Amino acid sequence: MFITFEGIDFSGKTTQVSLLEKFLIGKNYDVVTLREPGGTPMAEEIRKFLLDKNNQLSSTTELFLFESARSDLVSKVIIPALNLGKIVICDRFCDSSLAYQSYGRGLPIDFVDICNQKASQGLGPDITFFIDIPIDVMILRGQQRTNDRFESEKIEFIEKVIEGFRKIADENPSRVHIIDGTLSITKIHSMITKIVEQNLGKKL
Amino acid sequence: MFITFEGIDFSGKTTQVSLLEKFLIGKNYDVVTLREPGGTPMAEEIRKFLLDKNNQLSSTTELFLFESARSDLVSKVIIPALNLGKIVICDRFCDSSLAYQSYGRGLPIDFVDICNQKASQGLGPDITFFIDIPIDVMILRGQQRTNDRFESEKIEFIEKVIEGFRKIADENPSRVHIIDGTLSITKIHSMITKIVEQNLGKKL
Repeated sequence: MFITFEGIDFSGKTTQVSLLEKFLIGKNYDVVTLREPGGTPMAEEIRKFLLDKNNQLSSTTELFLFESARSDLVSKVIIPALNLGKIVICDRFCDSSLAYQSYGRGLPIDFVDICNQKASQGLGPDITFFIDIPIDVMILRGQQRTNDRFESEKIEFIEKVIEGFRKIADENPSRVHIIDGTLSITKIHSMITKIVEQNLGKKL
Repeated sequence: MFITFEGIDFSGKTTQVSLLEKFLIGKNYDVVTLREPGGTPMAEEIRKFLLDKNNQLSSTTELFLFESARSDLVSKVIIPALNLGKIVICDRFCDSSLAYQSYGRGLPIDFVDICNQKASQGLGPDITFFIDIPIDVMILRGQQRTNDRFESEKIEFIEKVIEGFRKIADENPSRVHIIDGTLSITKIHSMITKIVEQNLGKKL
């Protein structure tokens, strides 16, 4: 089973990934937890380029770097783990490229789509949790945690990304579960485990 | 003017790039000489991944890395240089991705094509020199220079790459000039300068 988490920064994705991982390990599942970009030595190097604020990259360069990292991760880690019957949990996957690089930055959807398909070898998640928070919740949480101010340009961009994630969820209703990210951590976690249990076909 | 050099390893590309650069600088042209992958700090890092023999990469990962490096180089170096009226000479460009990743490794031509177009922002060379050598000349030069033996698998792959370059040349006869790479260095250089002069519309 391949589970992905999607959403904007400060949505609480990473917390929920970690809670789900612990829950499944506690139930004796073999779990591989990953984040994108990352998970292979090369992908972790690419992560550094992408997160380096001094390194201005065009939207297209950004997309190719994400897809390079994804392609390496899928072929070296995700597919081998799934073949061994493990549960793979990934913090971000193809939907993030669509939401950020296409809906956010304006690259053509069909181009991002074909790159996603090639990088993932056509492999898609069984379940995707889209943790949805409104922009003002992100701004509030961001200010509390980093003391950063968000520039208006960035806010406009993030609004497009949120819209993108919502469209992706609407278009993939059987795969993508929209979770209200303003609920409490424990409430969200219990919603998530319930959906995972349904997909595993048993109560854990 | 944007000039690219293409061909397999040991074809003599790099020697000819350097001779053309010196020739044009001697004629007071402002020349920017580049090689792919490379030419920006990020692209040089990517070059290291791609040349690292301990780092096994899938064909798709390879392609995305080349395109990331290309996209960064085009936006940060090639387009700004051309806008300043400089002559840009590049050792390998989009044709190499087609020849190696598509004809050689088997990725779909239309996929490599669209990636090339996005990475280059639709910018194509004015002149491309494809320095063509037969496989046995490569093997001979390779053994003389590196003392490496070429495995039969590699020879088969390089044969497909050569065929790919020839097809690209056939399909783009006004842009791609096929140069017999078994001729002497000075003979090739004089053929190249003649073609560049024709394109500049004057004898240098």
